[in-house]
Amino acid sequence: MNNRAVDAVGIGNAIVDVLSHAETSLLEREGLSKGTMTLIDGPRAEALYADMGPGVEVSGGSAANSMAGLAALGGQAAFIGKVRDDQLGGIFRHDIRAAGVIFDTPSATEGAPTARCFIFVTPDAQRTMGTFLGASVDLGPEDVDEELIAGAKVTYLEGYLWDRPRAKEAFVKAAEVAHRAGRKVALTLSDPFCVERHRVEFRDLVDGHVDLVFANEHEVCSLYEVTAFDDALQAVRGSCEVAALTRSEKGAVVLRDGEVHVVDAEPAEKVIDTTGAGDLFAGGFLYGYTQGRGLYDCARIGAIAAAEVISHFGARPEASLADLVAGQSA
Amino acid sequence: MNNRAVDAVGIGNAIVDVLSHAETSLLEREGLSKGTMTLIDGPRAEALYADMGPGVEVSGGSAANSMAGLAALGGQAAFIGKVRDDQLGGIFRHDIRAAGVIFDTPSATEGAPTARCFIFVTPDAQRTMGTFLGASVDLGPEDVDEELIAGAKVTYLEGYLWDRPRAKEAFVKAAEVAHRAGRKVALTLSDPFCVERHRVEFRDLVDGHVDLVFANEHEVCSLYEVTAFDDALQAVRGSCEVAALTRSEKGAVVLRDGEVHVVDAEPAEKVIDTTGAGDLFAGGFLYGYTQGRGLYDCARIGAIAAAEVISHFGARPEASLADLVAGQSA
Repeated sequence: MNNRAVDAVGIGNAIVDVLSHAETSLLEREGLSKGTMTLIDGPRAEALYADMGPGVEVSGGSAANSMAGLAALGGQAAFIGKVRDDQLGGIFRHDIRAAGVIFDTPSATEGAPTARCFIFVTPDAQRTMGTFLGASVDLGPEDVDEELIAGAKVTYLEGYLWDRPRAKEAFVKAAEVAHRAGRKVALTLSDPFCVERHRVEFRDLVDGHVDLVFANEHEVCSLYEVTAFDDALQAVRGSCEVAALTRSEKGAVVLRDGEVHVVDAEPAEKVIDTTGAGDLFAGGFLYGYTQGRGLYDCARIGAIAAAEVISHFGARPEASLADLVAGQSA
Repeated sequence: MNNRAVDAVGIGNAIVDVLSHAETSLLEREGLSKGTMTLIDGPRAEALYADMGPGVEVSGGSAANSMAGLAALGGQAAFIGKVRDDQLGGIFRHDIRAAGVIFDTPSATEGAPTARCFIFVTPDAQRTMGTFLGASVDLGPEDVDEELIAGAKVTYLEGYLWDRPRAKEAFVKAAEVAHRAGRKVALTLSDPFCVERHRVEFRDLVDGHVDLVFANEHEVCSLYEVTAFDDALQAVRGSCEVAALTRSEKGAVVLRDGEVHVVDAEPAEKVIDTTGAGDLFAGGFLYGYTQGRGLYDCARIGAIAAAEVISHFGARPEASLADLVAGQSA
């Protein structure tokens, strides 16, 4: 199966999301910062779950969501990440394969259970996350399928991987394999707190080691320690081949060399849950990119995919993204 | 905790639902009859899951959904059912407790995993189910909490329990305990195929052993082997204290002695997924009943609860049912 040359391979944490509606007071009580991701250990995960309302389980994981989006658009996608051989791991494996994404990383047979991310959706449709990385931390360089990476047009890496030493080794190895094969490497900065944890190294990656960078406004501002979006925009210009900067309802700005496009957000009829918006923007963008589309079109496809995913609960596409894009001018 | 006298205790299969959108062609390929529930064994469950698209996991189970509905309306509810001590069992326990329902049945520590129900939602919003009963079949008379039952105004039993000998024993014991304590016993006929499997015994139950019966049009017609709804209506009249017969968008007919009410369905803005409609009708009805409301009001509350649950994916209430009912004339 891995002999197929895919459009993109994503590497990231393999996570099952547990979504629940919540009031802002719960976030305050649990010390979670609205709109961001907090890493939690096993005991804290149990306590947080006990405080959570009835949940809905859906496969997630940032890069995994992006690959599901790329596949929903008709692209060939693969994913590398680590689950445990438990029920949630089985659910993750089923769902990503059923979404049309190649996923052959072996399950861990011991150690922590499959990762889960508790996602609290507040009445303003914002999502706030507490992630227990579980078996995800066992991802290591041995899981990097060199043949798959060397055959993929783009290798897409989560900044979140930087949080664990062996996952980071896997990240570095994958980037080397991809570049050696003359392929592109893309990075998402993942989360402003994640950028804070790894700012120096992320700056170095963006400045010379990756070809495409995805970031939202808060992440790119944190990267360059500036408050104005335009300052971050000027800082990132020219640092890597492509930068795609998202700004929620304000749309996105995409850059390549001298080229700059300001792309409006796709109007969403009703915003139910913003979980996965950035992931699906990246998945849509990469679909366009690997099809050889122009930069503006790539961002438009990303915007359409993001608008679909925020119109419902959960971080993976429900509507046929390919149909949505075909119905648009992108 | 069990010392609290509750409004209702439900006894049924403790199931985690795995919902997915599907085309009708999948139902045909898998030999599933649209709108009904088919029992499947372990190997068939695996094959069916492999054929299913990406899923969403939500706690379900017919009587459990009804109790979640009753609790969402402000009633005191409890549930008795069997999960395994696995991840899905932990999800079921968390969700029903987080919904405010007392659930203290010990988990099985060996044997089959927690039950799951594969639910295929077709583009017409109908739901078709394949149920792997798993650990549910280990429910037995020893799990019937006599003090809880004796203190509950109503004991609500799933017809589905009749599918397994020990669960049936638990059913019979619970009914006896409830009646000995001067309490009411309610039965839902569950599914037309379930009625077919147990018609003679269900007829006997309705004719003299339960006080309230819940059935949809197909189930009650199957019970009396008639094709016209009115024939079933005439047959059930006087057989037990209360009969609540639901007819999807045609509303419901409720009977008590000489009293007959025809109650319109609550208009639903958009029908997304009919899973749980009957369960929530029963939960709403029982809320009214245990509050001493009139028969028509009970059915109106049931209709409002059913309309809420069909407006979204999943079989448990998302909106605050208590608010919805307060905003209506019921």
